Amino acid sequence: MTDLAARFRQLWDKIAPVGRDAGSGGYLRYALTDAELRLRQWFREQADRRGMPVTADGNGNLFAWWGDPGAGDAVLTGSHFDSVPHGGAYDGPLGIVSAFLAVDELRAAGVAPVRSVAVAAFVEEEGARFGVPCLGSRLLTGEIAVDRAAGLRDAAGVSFADALGDRPAGADPGLTGRFTAFVELHVEQGRALVETDAPVAVASAIWPHGRWRFDFHGEGNHAGTTRMADRRDPMLTYAFTVLAANKEARLRGAHATVGRVAVEPNATNAIPSKVTGWLDARAAEPDTLRGLVEAVHAKAAERARRDGTGLTLTEESATPLVAFDGGLGGRLAALLDAPVLPTGAGHDAGVLAAHLPTAMLFVRNPTGVSHSPAESATDADCAAGVSALARVLEELACR
Amino acid sequence: MTDLAARFRQLWDKIAPVGRDAGSGGYLRYALTDAELRLRQWFREQADRRGMPVTADGNGNLFAWWGDPGAGDAVLTGSHFDSVPHGGAYDGPLGIVSAFLAVDELRAAGVAPVRSVAVAAFVEEEGARFGVPCLGSRLLTGEIAVDRAAGLRDAAGVSFADALGDRPAGADPGLTGRFTAFVELHVEQGRALVETDAPVAVASAIWPHGRWRFDFHGEGNHAGTTRMADRRDPMLTYAFTVLAANKEARLRGAHATVGRVAVEPNATNAIPSKVTGWLDARAAEPDTLRGLVEAVHAKAAERARRDGTGLTLTEESATPLVAFDGGLGGRLAALLDAPVLPTGAGHDAGVLAAHLPTAMLFVRNPTGVSHSPAESATDADCAAGVSALARVLEELACR
Repeated sequence: MTDLAARFRQLWDKIAPVGRDAGSGGYLRYALTDAELRLRQWFREQADRRGMPVTADGNGNLFAWWGDPGAGDAVLTGSHFDSVPHGGAYDGPLGIVSAFLAVDELRAAGVAPVRSVAVAAFVEEEGARFGVPCLGSRLLTGEIAVDRAAGLRDAAGVSFADALGDRPAGADPGLTGRFTAFVELHVEQGRALVETDAPVAVASAIWPHGRWRFDFHGEGNHAGTTRMADRRDPMLTYAFTVLAANKEARLRGAHATVGRVAVEPNATNAIPSKVTGWLDARAAEPDTLRGLVEAVHAKAAERARRDGTGLTLTEESATPLVAFDGGLGGRLAALLDAPVLPTGAGHDAGVLAAHLPTAMLFVRNPTGVSHSPAESATDADCAAGVSALARVLEELACR
Repeated sequence: MTDLAARFRQLWDKIAPVGRDAGSGGYLRYALTDAELRLRQWFREQADRRGMPVTADGNGNLFAWWGDPGAGDAVLTGSHFDSVPHGGAYDGPLGIVSAFLAVDELRAAGVAPVRSVAVAAFVEEEGARFGVPCLGSRLLTGEIAVDRAAGLRDAAGVSFADALGDRPAGADPGLTGRFTAFVELHVEQGRALVETDAPVAVASAIWPHGRWRFDFHGEGNHAGTTRMADRRDPMLTYAFTVLAANKEARLRGAHATVGRVAVEPNATNAIPSKVTGWLDARAAEPDTLRGLVEAVHAKAAERARRDGTGLTLTEESATPLVAFDGGLGGRLAALLDAPVLPTGAGHDAGVLAAHLPTAMLFVRNPTGVSHSPAESATDADCAAGVSALARVLEELACR
């Protein structure tokens, strides 16, 4: 093991137990819950140790500064701590841990920043608690209204404003306007790097994607006594829609998933009165994505007529195609001699890309699995990620 | 309104608010939770007011006695308090309230029991909390092992023994052997009486029925980045199985419902690692039911092979055909000049029918809906039910 890989492992082990579910081995690190608050505290301690002052933007995002937090020009890196339910260890935290280690590498090499470097911990990137992904970066850039964000509620009814302890501050162009670039390092979510035999890649684009909620309304009734012909069973319309979404996505080379469902009353011997399914859909082109969602909606509506059920469709979030700054991405790919890849996953980098030059680095994931305990990366590849990020920060902030 | 209908309404209004959800208007009266414990306390108060001693069988079932609780011969009536999630008001409590009012009617008419009459409140009839329906009557008759019942757990992990405060006592043949008959009055769960224009019917049989749990195992992964061809998505196998169950039931004139589902991790942007669906299936004939479940299993297994998912099938409960005592049923139908109907719903009467002469009375339900807030019965029909039950108790216990 190289020294850097060992240093990575040492720091990584400090946060590995936080929020880990003993049953699944996955993480329950929801935004602003105990586990995530412990990671934020760890973030402050790591910054303190390095003499990096920490600032907060009033939206739940934290920034640890190498150099003057008030400097006119700065380079942003970092990622997020929060996880999906039973998610993997790397998605998010790898970008923050790697950023601290990259600063250590540069300092050890005697490199000093010309522009300040800010390491960010963005809040609620996954949307697993309050429903809207990239909530922290959307607030910071003004991509979501403060009132809407403040009123978002978790499953227990707690609002984002209550969890935050205050009304979110909203857009801060005085802060974002000072960043000359944002580079987010992230574990790869796919197996492209296994096939190309490179430990690190540069992102080209994020597919347009979004979340659509299908509410199917029927008539609750007794499962044993209600004749099949008399039923208005929304579970049938839901099931048909799940299969239709899969088929329509395959036909278009797109991605569609129904991974979340809620049933009322959800009892074995009761025909449901209501079933809600959430469609996650993504495609390389915006027209393909629109066509996919329209086709699934049409098929669901047709089946609802047959089942005697009602259907309402709500777009909960939609993120357009993000083409990362070609100049920046090409410069980093040349610097690192790294392959360039698109991704289907949303990131804070996707939100910030509309406001400043933005790039992403991906670290190889041998399983290709993400949002699951099986997500992984070797210590050697993580060290390669730290080295790559250090070279990028040296290029962007120290020359 | 007749006097009896007014007396029914007066007593009914006392329990109507207990456990009612303000949102749905349905009831959350799970066995041994606060709402059901309040109804059990009300049961004891009603018995006290009538000078009816209350006994408990150590399984969670209560008995209020008109006459000597130790008498050699007795007639059993009553029903249950617990509900399905957001269930109706009548399913269960109607049989208990009607029994107290029938005793009042007989007393007011100067009729005295030759055999004691016991009004039962059975525990966990719906199986909504611990998963096994008719748990109290199964324990009393030895139809379920005490160890298995004691270890059943609710969604929060609380065992039935802990909720009961003790290990269940199990079969009590000394008690059941003294009952010469059980007559359970219940709200109708269907629209047959609306069509026949009669307020009360006598049951002929309960269809064989059961609950089967389908566990579909897949691979949790990121919804955005995982290629469709690389997925092992158990939601697809689940959805296909829901539609197959509906189709196979229609082909056979049987009933099949998937009204309950559990998903891991149940996140919008994660392909599930596991989906569990519960199949409720019923048919007039045991062979039809067996063929139905086998056909659904075969189709689910075939689809699982296509989806790359795993499937395990567990029979959680199975209740054979219950043909109620023909002599008793015919005698009551003649006494009441009432139609005779089968039902697809399970009841404590179905469990007790294997041990003593058992009959059921159904009270007309104009919506035909059950296990839903829309379940209903008019006060006039409920009064007709009380009169019918009083005549039955007079016939069986007072001559």
